[in-house]
Amino acid sequence: MFIFTKYLSYRIKHMDNRKEKNESDAAGSDYMHGLAIDAVIFGFHDHQLKVLLMQYKRSNIYALPGGFIHKEENLEDAAHRVVSERTGLTDIYLEQFHVFGDAHRADPAPLRSIMMANGFEPGENHWLLQRFVSIGYYALVDFTKVTPMPDRIFDGCNWYGLNDIPPLMQDHETIVKKALESLRTNLDNKLVAFNLMPEEFTMNDLQALYETILDKKLLRPAFQRKILSLNILQRIAKKWTGGAHKAPYLYKFIR
Amino acid sequence: MFIFTKYLSYRIKHMDNRKEKNESDAAGSDYMHGLAIDAVIFGFHDHQLKVLLMQYKRSNIYALPGGFIHKEENLEDAAHRVVSERTGLTDIYLEQFHVFGDAHRADPAPLRSIMMANGFEPGENHWLLQRFVSIGYYALVDFTKVTPMPDRIFDGCNWYGLNDIPPLMQDHETIVKKALESLRTNLDNKLVAFNLMPEEFTMNDLQALYETILDKKLLRPAFQRKILSLNILQRIAKKWTGGAHKAPYLYKFIR
Repeated sequence: MFIFTKYLSYRIKHMDNRKEKNESDAAGSDYMHGLAIDAVIFGFHDHQLKVLLMQYKRSNIYALPGGFIHKEENLEDAAHRVVSERTGLTDIYLEQFHVFGDAHRADPAPLRSIMMANGFEPGENHWLLQRFVSIGYYALVDFTKVTPMPDRIFDGCNWYGLNDIPPLMQDHETIVKKALESLRTNLDNKLVAFNLMPEEFTMNDLQALYETILDKKLLRPAFQRKILSLNILQRIAKKWTGGAHKAPYLYKFIR
Repeated sequence: MFIFTKYLSYRIKHMDNRKEKNESDAAGSDYMHGLAIDAVIFGFHDHQLKVLLMQYKRSNIYALPGGFIHKEENLEDAAHRVVSERTGLTDIYLEQFHVFGDAHRADPAPLRSIMMANGFEPGENHWLLQRFVSIGYYALVDFTKVTPMPDRIFDGCNWYGLNDIPPLMQDHETIVKKALESLRTNLDNKLVAFNLMPEEFTMNDLQALYETILDKKLLRPAFQRKILSLNILQRIAKKWTGGAHKAPYLYKFIR
């Protein structure tokens, strides 16, 4: 979790005094201390699995979208809020997948430097410089419906192909890797993949998605047989391609 | 998590003054606040899946074993410590399965009453009466190797069959249910069940375990074929039964 930027967003939103010397300021006291959320937001586009990353202003620091938990907020609600704020979506498929709790997973020194460079003077025991345990969620979203939304702190909020991810802050690369493992495990037993598809899709689209997530080629007849046997797809109509070739069927997921 | 008893254990262990009026006492400051661990420890015995439960002294209050995370302790180490303290085991199969983070999952009022009945006078903002997010772990242990260990606070630390679980504190019944769901999901893709078996076992023992976890009967030939095809079992010798009947083979898990 990119602690400082979350914090900055909060400060600006609440128009706090920009000079801060008090350890127990209001910004800190509204959140549970020591606990954060990091979100791996997966989308599927151009036959590629992509994740949404934040880029910190005037730097090459990249981080997963993340946030904190308000003292009176349910954990799940906080996770939905975090993903909603970055994607503009409200109906989000979200899965809690792992808690990252190594005592020294995040070095506070760079955070302190960034804070000071931005006019903050955090005390030695500032809550943002303490240890954070981070709860990892992955979200599966329809790429075509997302409007990536940076905030006032981040220059960028953009999609990156899984193979083109820039170096990430702290243990965020581990978090992405673990999210992908969990997604693979849940592919069959929870049928999560449909959350990554647009409303209507062809069998080819779906197979491409499975192949991308699993990172291996699948045999078309076997794949099609397996998926159709689940009775979760509704065949809609032939896709009009305007060409002379046989048009593929369009399918829709029956929830 | 049965917050108060964890806390009492801690207090007694560290010989603190039993009268406490200070909010930020040393007992609290050694742990991360707002974060706890609850452990669902599964064992298999008499063809039954069992869980280890704590019973609070002079009461019918039952709770899952649990604990807190020291400020300098890795989350995984804390979970191992908690399970180790209650089972006497050191080599433990442990799986993080879910975080329980509803804002009002635990009512502080009964905790306060118990604390006061035991001579503590917790202030309004005492850390133990604040909100706790709990990280759920399940452990799979060899029933025959466990010595359930109560501490000075708990009268009891005993095994209970999944169908004979007494009413549990707070949301602990939900935690057990969720742990079981997760165990079922991981049965095939992680082959976790072997952690519940003794060193040597028969195919019948193993099938009984799978049937218990899945709560359904399995066909013996299909089960045996499936398990043997995984190439994870070593056949040892025939079990000596002393009788005239055909003795079953004994197997061992190859890690």
